[in-house]
Amino acid sequence: MTSQTPVAEMHPQRWGAPESATVLPDSARALVDLAFGLQDHPAVVGATPPPAALDDDLLGALRALVGDENVLVDDATRALRTRGKSTPDLLRARAGDLTDAPDAVVRPDGHDEVAAVLAWAGEHRVAVVPFGGGTCVTGGLAARRDGFAGLVSLDLVRMKRLLAVDEVSMTATLEPGLRGPEAEALLAGHGVTLGHYPQSFEHASIGGFAATRSSGQSSAGYGRFDAMVVGLEAATPTGPLSLGSSPANAAGPDLRQLLLGSEGAFGVITSVTVRVCKAPAETSYEGWRWPSFAAGSDAMRTLAQAGLLPTVIRLSDESETAINLADPSSIGGAGGGCLMITGYEGTIEQVEARRAAVTAVLTDLGGTPLGNEPGQAWAHGRFGAPYLRDALLDHGVLVETLETATFWSGRQRLYDDVRAALTSSLGEGSLVLCHVSHVYETGCSLYFTVAARQGDDPIAQWQAAKAAASDAIVAAGATITHHHAVGTDHQPWLDREIGEVGVRVLRAVKAELDPVGILNPGILIP
Amino acid sequence: MTSQTPVAEMHPQRWGAPESATVLPDSARALVDLAFGLQDHPAVVGATPPPAALDDDLLGALRALVGDENVLVDDATRALRTRGKSTPDLLRARAGDLTDAPDAVVRPDGHDEVAAVLAWAGEHRVAVVPFGGGTCVTGGLAARRDGFAGLVSLDLVRMKRLLAVDEVSMTATLEPGLRGPEAEALLAGHGVTLGHYPQSFEHASIGGFAATRSSGQSSAGYGRFDAMVVGLEAATPTGPLSLGSSPANAAGPDLRQLLLGSEGAFGVITSVTVRVCKAPAETSYEGWRWPSFAAGSDAMRTLAQAGLLPTVIRLSDESETAINLADPSSIGGAGGGCLMITGYEGTIEQVEARRAAVTAVLTDLGGTPLGNEPGQAWAHGRFGAPYLRDALLDHGVLVETLETATFWSGRQRLYDDVRAALTSSLGEGSLVLCHVSHVYETGCSLYFTVAARQGDDPIAQWQAAKAAASDAIVAAGATITHHHAVGTDHQPWLDREIGEVGVRVLRAVKAELDPVGILNPGILIP
Repeated sequence: MTSQTPVAEMHPQRWGAPESATVLPDSARALVDLAFGLQDHPAVVGATPPPAALDDDLLGALRALVGDENVLVDDATRALRTRGKSTPDLLRARAGDLTDAPDAVVRPDGHDEVAAVLAWAGEHRVAVVPFGGGTCVTGGLAARRDGFAGLVSLDLVRMKRLLAVDEVSMTATLEPGLRGPEAEALLAGHGVTLGHYPQSFEHASIGGFAATRSSGQSSAGYGRFDAMVVGLEAATPTGPLSLGSSPANAAGPDLRQLLLGSEGAFGVITSVTVRVCKAPAETSYEGWRWPSFAAGSDAMRTLAQAGLLPTVIRLSDESETAINLADPSSIGGAGGGCLMITGYEGTIEQVEARRAAVTAVLTDLGGTPLGNEPGQAWAHGRFGAPYLRDALLDHGVLVETLETATFWSGRQRLYDDVRAALTSSLGEGSLVLCHVSHVYETGCSLYFTVAARQGDDPIAQWQAAKAAASDAIVAAGATITHHHAVGTDHQPWLDREIGEVGVRVLRAVKAELDPVGILNPGILIP
Repeated sequence: MTSQTPVAEMHPQRWGAPESATVLPDSARALVDLAFGLQDHPAVVGATPPPAALDDDLLGALRALVGDENVLVDDATRALRTRGKSTPDLLRARAGDLTDAPDAVVRPDGHDEVAAVLAWAGEHRVAVVPFGGGTCVTGGLAARRDGFAGLVSLDLVRMKRLLAVDEVSMTATLEPGLRGPEAEALLAGHGVTLGHYPQSFEHASIGGFAATRSSGQSSAGYGRFDAMVVGLEAATPTGPLSLGSSPANAAGPDLRQLLLGSEGAFGVITSVTVRVCKAPAETSYEGWRWPSFAAGSDAMRTLAQAGLLPTVIRLSDESETAINLADPSSIGGAGGGCLMITGYEGTIEQVEARRAAVTAVLTDLGGTPLGNEPGQAWAHGRFGAPYLRDALLDHGVLVETLETATFWSGRQRLYDDVRAALTSSLGEGSLVLCHVSHVYETGCSLYFTVAARQGDDPIAQWQAAKAAASDAIVAAGATITHHHAVGTDHQPWLDREIGEVGVRVLRAVKAELDPVGILNPGILIP
């Protein structure tokens, strides 16, 4: 069964569908002008990609595999498959830089056609970039093309089927091209949900969630995406991989966990079997105020270690709370402190029981309940931040995010060090905001958002800040990325995370599964 | 800090410490005689291993690395490090067959000494078998020695420290040689517990739990061992691996999950950092009766999918319930049906709340509460079955177990098919019992125990039954092992589980981490 509500293409220079593009809200203009100065930074219009490198013989062989209509070489399509949606990606796109455009976009349908495209690419030494939703923010769609005859974007847009639902085992098998809303619409037909809502939800794909170890805003309740996966199939240049005999087993290393997070460098994930849950009858989001980020974080830790997490739990630091644009009326308000959002999903009984238990703990720890309004405001605006980024880029404000995770005992140091590194690099007048949005019994994520007035070279400006933050992260022993994947941006720090031997293991697996090295060259593996 | 309560060596021909050896209980003699005929099968006494193959020069170099007293070549020590504790292993040991004895037992202390021993072994082409508790039941300690200058058992007995406890993050870092009770005694000093209680608990080691993806009887509450691990260090011939920046991350594939379950074939795990929980203030075990295995299984599924699992939940099928030797008074009793054990651990409030919620669901589904007595009987006898096996082997009764797991929708077929395969292979008069002891939202394990009168070649008798069961398991698409690992016994079916490409990935990782192939040759990887 295929989704009846296809997700629209994103704007080539902005986040989201073209018709959804927004301008800076009036309520924020004065504040932004005061903080950074309003500048006019329009995007270049009418840029075209460089001429395609693949000749007609090569393209003809490709067309024979997937059909003429599924090998696209027009400029507009190639522009739409150029890079992802990090701020550097957007800055390049806005500047009219399409140098990373693929030579062609190929749209195979099904595992066998994907395998055939990989065989064609291996034979002719063509680099292949698997493409799901195009929402990557770590440079994972800008593969290296030197040494290759060309580069194609392997677009999974035709693979959007719900292949199976097992309502006894509560699993669903999904094709990788399904975007978040398409998958949820199909699952809703069976009364079930994945419950996976990263900020990229509206455009990101099932295959992308798997290939990048995505984590959603409801991770406290539904788990990370990698924790939902019980099976997967992948096409690799070496052959097919089909994994998932059981929820868990002891039949050697868990190879599912080797494909999850492999970012298209080991193979193309052609289906994913995931644990699903009954669609919630009740959802309820609330706000809490804490006197400090530390006090709110400690409360999160208490809940996680007591096995009492809500479905959604997130905590903004003092700065993010003050700048909360999702609720402009609260800016500079008398409240102060740190805003926490708690969300509950499930049956009415589950929601009530969990809410009562959590409320008792949070009240006991000194939290102040703020009722449903802040929760509803958050839920309403939960996918909106990337649109605001575009509106700020229009006005010469550099906005970007980065995220990390550590164990609870290291949280304060990590927060202090990364904040100091970003502030020091971006200079006076920059804003550094942070929130915790994914918690575990043993630790949590930290998600930073920065804003600064753009200098002459905003990409270099960000790269310097990112490098300073990444250095601080690895020095603190934390992870270089909790849920955004490695791509190219995190690669310089990967060996600090998994060691030289860990990198060698990745290279060995890559050499076995992709001996010619056509899959996402330069992505993930240093 | 090191444990003050060292676990004793196991008997070379039986499970458990020599002084714990038992005879067949009087209450069972008549039943066993009726079912299988009481025979007298004494073990051979005084067998010695073949002469050691390593010469003095090689041993001298090894002694220089770890100290003279830590290179042992006496027959008794070598005999104690021969194979594991599967029924075929015991049958061989009882027959006086010590042909798999190592040439020496080497006891390094710490990561660097382990690495030095691996370097020595690589240089001289000596096979190395990492040894933790020696409880393996899948042939994982009988490495291949052809093509090697010799074979040493790398005994982790000196690595028994609790290296760190982080009471904020609720993690502990343990050395691999700690046996279950030793680890728990050290953790109890900090008021925390791992909560990992496989049947082998009294003798198995932390390193073994990690290397084999062990799952304990309290897995519903505390999780599988692999789910507890947040970090690990390993010595490999290629170099050190140190993983675990964070509870979870997106920094590429999760390489922790590649070392977990690697059965000593990729490296020697030299420390493990695990999530711990507060030691429970309250524990409570209860019994329930179900009209059928299917009804009880469905109730387990309902609990798992509602997020309402007890800490322990297990369900015996009709046969296992009838033959429940842990509670002989119930045999042939009027109850019939299937016995379920539910256990609750935590604070008094947690135990009461979870018990109330579970009781409501189970009552609603048609379960009959049996009170605490069956629960206490189970808890009292939970580690006892392997002793009973020895007592039955003394009387010529072949007893062995195997286990698998599948998704809920496949449970009935898997149960029927494996049961039929075992019954058919072992013939009339054999007993096949089954229980579910590990449940997930999407599926469960099935654990089979068989008993039959020993034929002339009991090892071949079991191997035929095991092969029939394994064929049925892979035909049903289930896992060849839920928590006993691959070893050598499951190897013929591994390619059916992970595919030819999956096996190639394991080989590639092995070649990278252990290029000479000294680590556990012939184990895990076909």
